[in-house]
Amino acid sequence: MDPSAPGLVKALAFDVFGTVVDWRGSVIRDGEELARRTGVKTDWSAFADAWRAEYAPSMRPIRHGEKPWVNLDVLHWENLLTTVQRFRLEGLAEADLRWLNLAWHRLDPWPDAAEGLARLKRKFIVVTLSNGNIALTVDLIRHGKLPFDAVLGAEVAKQYKPHPQAYLTTVSLLQLERSQVMMIAAHNSDLRGASRAGLRTGYVIRPTQYGPEQKNDLAPEGEWDVVAKDFVDLAQKLGA
Amino acid sequence: MDPSAPGLVKALAFDVFGTVVDWRGSVIRDGEELARRTGVKTDWSAFADAWRAEYAPSMRPIRHGEKPWVNLDVLHWENLLTTVQRFRLEGLAEADLRWLNLAWHRLDPWPDAAEGLARLKRKFIVVTLSNGNIALTVDLIRHGKLPFDAVLGAEVAKQYKPHPQAYLTTVSLLQLERSQVMMIAAHNSDLRGASRAGLRTGYVIRPTQYGPEQKNDLAPEGEWDVVAKDFVDLAQKLGA
Repeated sequence: MDPSAPGLVKALAFDVFGTVVDWRGSVIRDGEELARRTGVKTDWSAFADAWRAEYAPSMRPIRHGEKPWVNLDVLHWENLLTTVQRFRLEGLAEADLRWLNLAWHRLDPWPDAAEGLARLKRKFIVVTLSNGNIALTVDLIRHGKLPFDAVLGAEVAKQYKPHPQAYLTTVSLLQLERSQVMMIAAHNSDLRGASRAGLRTGYVIRPTQYGPEQKNDLAPEGEWDVVAKDFVDLAQKLGA
Repeated sequence: MDPSAPGLVKALAFDVFGTVVDWRGSVIRDGEELARRTGVKTDWSAFADAWRAEYAPSMRPIRHGEKPWVNLDVLHWENLLTTVQRFRLEGLAEADLRWLNLAWHRLDPWPDAAEGLARLKRKFIVVTLSNGNIALTVDLIRHGKLPFDAVLGAEVAKQYKPHPQAYLTTVSLLQLERSQVMMIAAHNSDLRGASRAGLRTGYVIRPTQYGPEQKNDLAPEGEWDVVAKDFVDLAQKLGA
């Protein structure tokens, strides 16, 4: 396809964690703030990575129908308690942990995100299609002043990506055909899910989303319709 | 309550038809455009009123569980066919009627809406809580450049206002208490529904939403928390 051809793609559906916002840097920052306030010390980079490592396994039983739907704030909380125990962090009150869990509501956008989105919005409907719940995503887009048209994704579908239902509910609520919606993500796995569900795919490389030692998701691993180095480059390549 | 007191109200949930946008003027405008294009003539003000008069009765069987959920584009379509028959309009192709049904996606905002919302957004989460479906509402907010944070309401709840489920699903997705969400509407009936569900209420008077002969909804009919003459006045009264 020529993804900039007029009329072909009507909406862009954005993954959020890692694609729009820098989850890792922001979680580390909030961990360090908590350390300053409470005196509880640890390696917050390792802590952030360990917490995030629980993310994919925690959604799996829900996708497989072995556990009823709970939203991502709940999974983050369960995963936080696991990680706190593993790191033997002591001396944090429940209020401290509740505050830390909301780090995922305070993630900073990548520097190009707001500008690129504003340009893309002139040509396309721009929505979130994240595994993050609605309250979390609303907080993020307000925090980053990100001009999305709507917050869709997992919580509306009551199913997590890469289950097809997460993608197809968003397509259906927009009253579009699958081929009129392009999933934008910095994760090849997300684009594989979107592509299997029949959506178009746009890959944005975020070379430090997993930290300075990143080894995965440094290059496209599929025949994605567009590959861009950031959202401004994406706007350029999509003719917006 | 003092509605401008900090921390009390966190989110404003907006009714859309008549409150944010001028449905009547916009439907008449599109009817007249269709007349110019096709030569099919009628009294488009009367047509708009008759079409809208089908709106409340068409949702009732869904609220009462006598008809399965269908979204508002579907109800508008069924109601359009009824109205076309009643007005004995002949000579309109299906494509013309499909275009006319989408008049509800092209409604113009009231002149104060975008400015008032931008101010309110600095202090509150601002979301739509409309009976309009998501695709329709996304088209409206893009058309009017209205800076909402999220599109919630009937289609997400699979229930129409004034059923409590429509209000409470929005409150729940925002992860707020009922008393932290204020329903903003130009219709006393909507505010009665919101109030029964436990939400705060803000009344905005739209004295021509039903046309120049408007007799209803010219004054508050309940103890609403705030009464404003437009969205800029609302921002002022809520300290935003």
